Amino acid sequence: MPVVNAYAAPSATGDLVPTKIKRRDVGPRDVLIEIRYAGICHSDIHTVRGHWGPQQYPLAPGHEIAGIVTQVGAEVTRHSVGDRVGVGCMVNSCRECVNCLKGEEQYCLAGNTGTYGAVDRDGTITQGGYSTHVVVSEDFVVRIPDALGLDVAAPLLCAGITTYSPLRHWGAGPGKKVAVVGLGGLGHMAVKIAHAMGAEVTVLSQSLKKQEDGLRLGADHYFASGDPSTFETLAGSFDLIINTVSASIDISAYLQLLSLDGALVNVGAPAETLPVNAFALITGRRSFAGSMIGGIRETQEMLDFCAEHGLGSEIEVIPASAINEAYERVLASDVRFRFVIDVATL
Amino acid sequence: MPVVNAYAAPSATGDLVPTKIKRRDVGPRDVLIEIRYAGICHSDIHTVRGHWGPQQYPLAPGHEIAGIVTQVGAEVTRHSVGDRVGVGCMVNSCRECVNCLKGEEQYCLAGNTGTYGAVDRDGTITQGGYSTHVVVSEDFVVRIPDALGLDVAAPLLCAGITTYSPLRHWGAGPGKKVAVVGLGGLGHMAVKIAHAMGAEVTVLSQSLKKQEDGLRLGADHYFASGDPSTFETLAGSFDLIINTVSASIDISAYLQLLSLDGALVNVGAPAETLPVNAFALITGRRSFAGSMIGGIRETQEMLDFCAEHGLGSEIEVIPASAINEAYERVLASDVRFRFVIDVATL
Repeated sequence: MPVVNAYAAPSATGDLVPTKIKRRDVGPRDVLIEIRYAGICHSDIHTVRGHWGPQQYPLAPGHEIAGIVTQVGAEVTRHSVGDRVGVGCMVNSCRECVNCLKGEEQYCLAGNTGTYGAVDRDGTITQGGYSTHVVVSEDFVVRIPDALGLDVAAPLLCAGITTYSPLRHWGAGPGKKVAVVGLGGLGHMAVKIAHAMGAEVTVLSQSLKKQEDGLRLGADHYFASGDPSTFETLAGSFDLIINTVSASIDISAYLQLLSLDGALVNVGAPAETLPVNAFALITGRRSFAGSMIGGIRETQEMLDFCAEHGLGSEIEVIPASAINEAYERVLASDVRFRFVIDVATL
Repeated sequence: MPVVNAYAAPSATGDLVPTKIKRRDVGPRDVLIEIRYAGICHSDIHTVRGHWGPQQYPLAPGHEIAGIVTQVGAEVTRHSVGDRVGVGCMVNSCRECVNCLKGEEQYCLAGNTGTYGAVDRDGTITQGGYSTHVVVSEDFVVRIPDALGLDVAAPLLCAGITTYSPLRHWGAGPGKKVAVVGLGGLGHMAVKIAHAMGAEVTVLSQSLKKQEDGLRLGADHYFASGDPSTFETLAGSFDLIINTVSASIDISAYLQLLSLDGALVNVGAPAETLPVNAFALITGRRSFAGSMIGGIRETQEMLDFCAEHGLGSEIEVIPASAINEAYERVLASDVRFRFVIDVATL
């Protein structure tokens, strides 16, 4: 059982520190990945700080993993040594339930196995990508096309697929008007992907502070949600709204921005319940929906789509020693648009 | 301008009483209908009592209208004297907006014209079906097939289309599991229609009091929503839930009963907002949606479907003099399943 370098939280309150963690031996259907880059997702912070429930420590987060295969088990057929690969938010699922059989492993009825902080099949707690190596079942490893740098690809494994999947599911494309609420790690990918899919894209951000960025990333329009006139101007405008803001927003007000049969899709879930005015739903056959990452097959499809359209994440590469500072900046929304750890500095 | 007999509310608090109301002259594209039966919908009570906003009185409610055409305007092409016809919840719309052009006049962007209590194109306030005659634009009049009695057809114009439309829109049919929340005027039609569409139908009612009725109407299963174990037993079970209960129910608990990509569709809107746990949405790509009556084309389709499958409403026919008593019984949920006024008693 190899011991590898990682950056991990020692407790719910302590700063992340360099640590040694154990990886399992490479099984017959496992691949060993030398991690090159790991993205920092807001949910890493929530998890290590215990906001979503108690954890076992030390805990190395990270579910936006890009690296190179350095060893494969005897029965592995999907990956080879030297392959450029990625791992996202899950590393296993039951593989037997109706959702797994549909290729929607993220909705596994037995619960998928999270990349970190979850109980793995051997009873150990999974450790994430802030680490030099990881051992993962080949079925939960995806190819990163040559056209994508490993650094800009890493965040696609969470931020990319989390936005690609609902955009695809709800039919974003030519002739469709899509709004993206929030222009952070997820939102900026939603803009890029929706634009590449051919949709007319509008950003709804608290202020106009990031307007120039939004238009550069592919948005056709940009409005401040902090300005009440925005909700009058845009009433009944959109076929689809992707809400990337995990804080509680006024769902009923956003629902009114949808046209007939429109859907407002949350890709995050605030802790508190959201009050919904059913009148806003019934008067336009509107839907308030949710979506969670994507299946493995669709994650591969997303990476291929991003490679084809030259879409990487907008990143700021940092050394491991800057992780704690990066966390503070994420919490202050001071990042354009994703921190990525250069794992060579571990 | 003919004056006709009606039963109308004199104020928000007074009992309904016999009244004379004016109907407009039959215009070139209007039809005059001799009303035979008018259903009593819960929303009649809300409206005349001012729960949904102030009204002008006297106000004759009624938007479940079945009768016979007795006069047509010179340019009318869709209906002839002697035709068996119905009028539902709306009598006009702008006819020009994108939703009207799609045949979804109920979602008219200018607001459809309600059958009663709405401002008509001539500035008068529309009066409903608790009346001997009504004059309606031919485009908002539908044919009632010979196979349907006018009495059991009347409630289809609201309760029928309000449930048929979302069942059709969300794909109820063979292989689909549909739950109906509430077994009242709307719920009992949802059960009949979903069963006729070929879906596996489950009723979720407060208690098992109406279980025998539910099974007779076509339900395959019947559960008491007042029993907490119901929510464990049925977790992840349904493709579609039609919520016919206008009171505030625990939406998040019902969302958990949906399988992957399932939708919970409200056909009514309680006054208060409904708290929704976004986690229940994102963990199964579930939707909380709303639907409001149906378009004219779809209302005709529904009537033809009901005739083909022999589906009428379960009714209790009353004389006009029993309207006030019937209102009290509707409020006490003491009706199986719809009161219909025999307009000959007016």
